[in-house]
Amino acid sequence: MNRKEIFEQIQKKRSFLCIGLDTDIAKIPDFLKNEADPVFEFNKRIIDATQDYCVAYKPNIAFYEALGPKGWESLEKTLAYIPDNIFTIADAKRGDIGNTSKLYAKTFFEYLNFDAVTVAPYMGVDSVTPFLEKNRFVILLGLTSNKGSEDFQFSHLSNGNRVFEEVMEVSKNWGNSDQIMYVVGATNALELKNIRKIIPDHFLLVPGYGAQGGSLEEVAEYGMNKDCGLLVNSSRGIIYADSTENFDKAAMMKSKEIQLKMDQLLSANNI
Amino acid sequence: MNRKEIFEQIQKKRSFLCIGLDTDIAKIPDFLKNEADPVFEFNKRIIDATQDYCVAYKPNIAFYEALGPKGWESLEKTLAYIPDNIFTIADAKRGDIGNTSKLYAKTFFEYLNFDAVTVAPYMGVDSVTPFLEKNRFVILLGLTSNKGSEDFQFSHLSNGNRVFEEVMEVSKNWGNSDQIMYVVGATNALELKNIRKIIPDHFLLVPGYGAQGGSLEEVAEYGMNKDCGLLVNSSRGIIYADSTENFDKAAMMKSKEIQLKMDQLLSANNI
Repeated sequence: MNRKEIFEQIQKKRSFLCIGLDTDIAKIPDFLKNEADPVFEFNKRIIDATQDYCVAYKPNIAFYEALGPKGWESLEKTLAYIPDNIFTIADAKRGDIGNTSKLYAKTFFEYLNFDAVTVAPYMGVDSVTPFLEKNRFVILLGLTSNKGSEDFQFSHLSNGNRVFEEVMEVSKNWGNSDQIMYVVGATNALELKNIRKIIPDHFLLVPGYGAQGGSLEEVAEYGMNKDCGLLVNSSRGIIYADSTENFDKAAMMKSKEIQLKMDQLLSANNI
Repeated sequence: MNRKEIFEQIQKKRSFLCIGLDTDIAKIPDFLKNEADPVFEFNKRIIDATQDYCVAYKPNIAFYEALGPKGWESLEKTLAYIPDNIFTIADAKRGDIGNTSKLYAKTFFEYLNFDAVTVAPYMGVDSVTPFLEKNRFVILLGLTSNKGSEDFQFSHLSNGNRVFEEVMEVSKNWGNSDQIMYVVGATNALELKNIRKIIPDHFLLVPGYGAQGGSLEEVAEYGMNKDCGLLVNSSRGIIYADSTENFDKAAMMKSKEIQLKMDQLLSANNI
């Protein structure tokens, strides 16, 4: 999916919700544990229940990797099951020297057929550009939602920028807004005003809404642009909304509730 | 393996060589491709041929992940095959919010039983500390060996530090030198003198020797401390030294050649 198609889906579904498929085998309802592939079965039911209310799914690769070869198979099946008109993000936070990043790009874009992968910026240009050669999206970590974002991302550089601003200033020249998105945590929503001066057009993937405490209204107020430009993620708040046999219905209710708020915020911005 | 045991192996083998098992299915000798598990078979023969000349093996996870579930199985078998007195490093460059880093730590330290894992520092303290709870090693990216290291790692902060120095200054307080090591590329060997003022005692994992052009003599001159404090990595220069049926003998010759140089450098430093 390209940028234009993402925006079309946002307009059609009146939603900019991304659902994080952080499927933890220890947290899924007991009755699913007798299935041949409980992780895939859980994801399948979550996808069936929520696909009308979201425009993206984002499996965090850590949860699949922790299960070894079986987890990898569950991930493959999940990707194949997600409808084509929903944007898929591998939350992998990879990044390595050029020849290695090239392999990671091949894995996520060719083998697993994701539309996007999250990448850490620390190693610079040649760790990122191999991901730009496949006509998919790199989602670079900009300002993350966790406490540790204070350690280095907010450090002031002698040129006046803070580190996360420098990352955006420099990397926006490595590709265009059809190739690059940025992670900006909802817990730092007030920074979005300033970030939009650096990258007015790019889509932002916004984690930290829900379980981590960020505000949807603030994110929309400071971060929305003419094409919406936002994919706001919720993981635990939706997929673990209920731990009984009704977990999928609860996930549907929760995602519908968020979609209704998003519809209003889109209308308020004339979208 | 702990720090003391690593140093004992360095003294015994007169080597501080780490061999990168970046095993690319496209590059292994043709005659192995009929084996049931060509990647494992290649690694097994490399390990048999080189284990007397190195103190560590470092599989880069990208190469295994690119093969899907089968790659994961090859990695598991490789880890199980490496002798216990050789230090094992998962070159994974992971790092995520706390609950996710915890899962990555479980995968690499419990499931796969690695001694160490490389981690990117961008997300700060809570992305790193879950890796410190397992009595294994975190190897934080400090100054990498690639061209992109210039983009952000060398940026000057208003407190006088460059970003990579700030990463070392701040993170050395998150654990001690029995828990943390740092990546410092051989291509930046002259910086080691200054880096040793910040972290005099920590072990450094030094990539970029060989194919990437770094000098072993310079690394030893500026980076060696009283416990050696160095694990110098070579991947392609050893494992792809030859592409015929003699690839393992060529890898043995190449690693022995490096070990002999290392012996001299250790002696010159009274180790």
